[in-house]
Amino acid sequence: MDRHTQPARGMRDFLPDDVRRREYVIGVITRVYRAYGFEPLETPAVENIETLLGKYGEEGNKLIFKILRRGEHESGGAADLALRYDLTVPLARVVAEHRGRLPKFFKRYQIQPVWRADRPARGRFREFYQCDVDVVGSRSMVVEAELCAAVSDVLLELGFTDFVIRLNHRLLLRGMLDAFGIPEGQHEQALVAVDKLDKIGHAGVAAEFAARGIPAEGGDRLLSIFEAIAALRSGVPDTSAFNDQALARLRNDLPAGAVSSAGLGELGDIVRLTAGTRAGTRLAIDPSLARGLSYYTGAIFEIAVADLAGSLGGGGRYDGLVGMFSGEDVPACGVSLGLERILVVMGERKMFPETVTRGSADVMVTLFEGEPPSHALAVAATLRTSGLRVDVYPETDKIGKQLKFASARGIRFAAIIGESERQADTVTIKDLTAGGQQTIARADAASYIMGLLSRP
Amino acid sequence: MDRHTQPARGMRDFLPDDVRRREYVIGVITRVYRAYGFEPLETPAVENIETLLGKYGEEGNKLIFKILRRGEHESGGAADLALRYDLTVPLARVVAEHRGRLPKFFKRYQIQPVWRADRPARGRFREFYQCDVDVVGSRSMVVEAELCAAVSDVLLELGFTDFVIRLNHRLLLRGMLDAFGIPEGQHEQALVAVDKLDKIGHAGVAAEFAARGIPAEGGDRLLSIFEAIAALRSGVPDTSAFNDQALARLRNDLPAGAVSSAGLGELGDIVRLTAGTRAGTRLAIDPSLARGLSYYTGAIFEIAVADLAGSLGGGGRYDGLVGMFSGEDVPACGVSLGLERILVVMGERKMFPETVTRGSADVMVTLFEGEPPSHALAVAATLRTSGLRVDVYPETDKIGKQLKFASARGIRFAAIIGESERQADTVTIKDLTAGGQQTIARADAASYIMGLLSRP
Repeated sequence: MDRHTQPARGMRDFLPDDVRRREYVIGVITRVYRAYGFEPLETPAVENIETLLGKYGEEGNKLIFKILRRGEHESGGAADLALRYDLTVPLARVVAEHRGRLPKFFKRYQIQPVWRADRPARGRFREFYQCDVDVVGSRSMVVEAELCAAVSDVLLELGFTDFVIRLNHRLLLRGMLDAFGIPEGQHEQALVAVDKLDKIGHAGVAAEFAARGIPAEGGDRLLSIFEAIAALRSGVPDTSAFNDQALARLRNDLPAGAVSSAGLGELGDIVRLTAGTRAGTRLAIDPSLARGLSYYTGAIFEIAVADLAGSLGGGGRYDGLVGMFSGEDVPACGVSLGLERILVVMGERKMFPETVTRGSADVMVTLFEGEPPSHALAVAATLRTSGLRVDVYPETDKIGKQLKFASARGIRFAAIIGESERQADTVTIKDLTAGGQQTIARADAASYIMGLLSRP
Repeated sequence: MDRHTQPARGMRDFLPDDVRRREYVIGVITRVYRAYGFEPLETPAVENIETLLGKYGEEGNKLIFKILRRGEHESGGAADLALRYDLTVPLARVVAEHRGRLPKFFKRYQIQPVWRADRPARGRFREFYQCDVDVVGSRSMVVEAELCAAVSDVLLELGFTDFVIRLNHRLLLRGMLDAFGIPEGQHEQALVAVDKLDKIGHAGVAAEFAARGIPAEGGDRLLSIFEAIAALRSGVPDTSAFNDQALARLRNDLPAGAVSSAGLGELGDIVRLTAGTRAGTRLAIDPSLARGLSYYTGAIFEIAVADLAGSLGGGGRYDGLVGMFSGEDVPACGVSLGLERILVVMGERKMFPETVTRGSADVMVTLFEGEPPSHALAVAATLRTSGLRVDVYPETDKIGKQLKFASARGIRFAAIIGESERQADTVTIKDLTAGGQQTIARADAASYIMGLLSRP
């Protein structure tokens, strides 16, 4: 006997109601993305190890699950394959590999698990789903606007009413760092520190700056700008008025520079382009948003909700990544939604419609001692042809036990077929929720049940 | 630049139309299984290596993808995790781990990829999907009957009209081998040879018997029985008459023995129980069906179609496997459909409905030079609220180029918004398939398009 019955560390089994909740959210995401003309893509869970190594930084390399070579090479202990770490690098690889078969503007969504050998913690797993949506092939800000609109539609359809899409631009960040005398070699370090502002606050970031040898004066000026915009935000509740004022303020406070004004110009475009969409009231300029990944080159976004420390998702423009595989200059921009985070918040806020977990079937057919089960199975087949979900109790048993089983499974109706029902080709339909029962012709039973199901 | 743009050996990228075909088949399978009261289960791609080792025989152990330990242990070259190899062992683990949270009769379906380090060949991949449906907790033949009925409904809904579910029983096989003097220690070897009957024929199997040291006379008698039943099959086209005659013949030809008559009894039950379902005309007794896996204990089935060497799926009863994890005696029975095989045959036979790959969107909104794209995005948002799939061309470009892009993508309508349309809040809808265009109020555009889409 094998006592190892737990799933591997940091991984989870999803029992039926878990799967139903996951499928509900994935269904909404898929429907919205399709409504925007995005197309589905799937890539293998396993990639050649060279495809992944070097794409996620030193930290990332360590978190990649590596697969042993096989056969005679197994004992050598070397790895030739690795598990998918995100959905962006596979997209870049696919675009390079299949460029001729893909449209000039390739709009794809991809909803698949990824694996990271992170230390498991509350809400952090080693296998988790990402829901990515990307546009490859255009530098137009229409792309950023459509991505923000699509993500807003997803969240609104799921019932989120309090989310904000924080919006920033890598060129604006670079322009600020340049303007405040932080040397280019320290930009990366400075952004890593800025990325923690939410968690460790102004003083914490200032301390990190000091620890990383970033000039104090420049660091201070950077943090003051962030604070000025945050103060403006709390004073101007209307997001579109706030965005205009924030952009004006930044344009005014920063020394004129090509880099930051290109960033500010694109941010202004995104704000204007989304005005007539449901993202219009959701976007909020936030010059302190850094986002860790080094591959972003333009606009960046991150979705915040009130009671969550992290984000529900985020993304941005990465015009250089596809070129790492194809050698061609291919612009791209995308957003990734974190399925696990969305599920956690929806669970805590009780946002799932009741119908999502409404039992394993609509009707259960009972089996009577001495009655031929073949007849019960034939009746079940009849009921199913009208689209009902029909379970059959697999064994003969006391009727009370069978009905109790159905109730416990959330099944509302029992179809009882004794000798008299069989001889008259009828079924007795018992409503296990509302009570009461009625004997009707087999041919009419499905529509009778459907009628009751459609009423609350 | 990274030239490794191919997917890993034996693995595949699924471009949008591939995914749509896969999702169509998975959608049908899911809908039918739900109609039978089966519930969804998902398990991690990665399992502890001890969970998998020793469950699939020596050959299987070699085909398991193993994952290197991480961090300081990485250089040791040892593996602690492995990729899911099938969906049955994880089910057994889940039942042992979560028994208290699962119903007494647990009916689950599971549609997920598995990984095997097999040598890739035509139609054989290293990552492929299995679609499993199992019932845990009952020894009743109602389970076998419902499984056969569900699988038949799936295949009929997909449009297969020529499939046969070959049906046999491990106890009947054992009874025959015993009766013909093949020692129990050679049963496994004999079944491996019998399993190849389809591919290598009578003479081939006889040669395998000889090579494996199986008594010639016993082997001959076994093969004669198989031939007698096969001859009966071609003489009796009606499957239900054939099944009755085949069972009678086997009962008659085999020496009375508890083992084979228990098997024959259950086969008779399954045939009777399915009579009123759509599996009734699909089942065909086949005493030569062996199925490789050693964990089967009762009825076994395999789905055959005319022009496919292998099968579309198969399964059987395995009353001992769950106990390997739980220590309790838990009966179970299931069928696995091979998604990749089904897709290959459906592709060759052109069985996919045209609507499965009907383009990435219903409408594409064009962008005019000098016109504000924010207005186009707002119109797209309006069209989407009625459920249309709406793409937006992301850049301004010659109108001809934009329309050509839409046509190439299979998008039927273009929504053209120039200055006059914007000022009058109208849209010009151009039908790229049928030709012709009409300018209408923005608010009426969606229902106008929906009307045209609903006509052929």
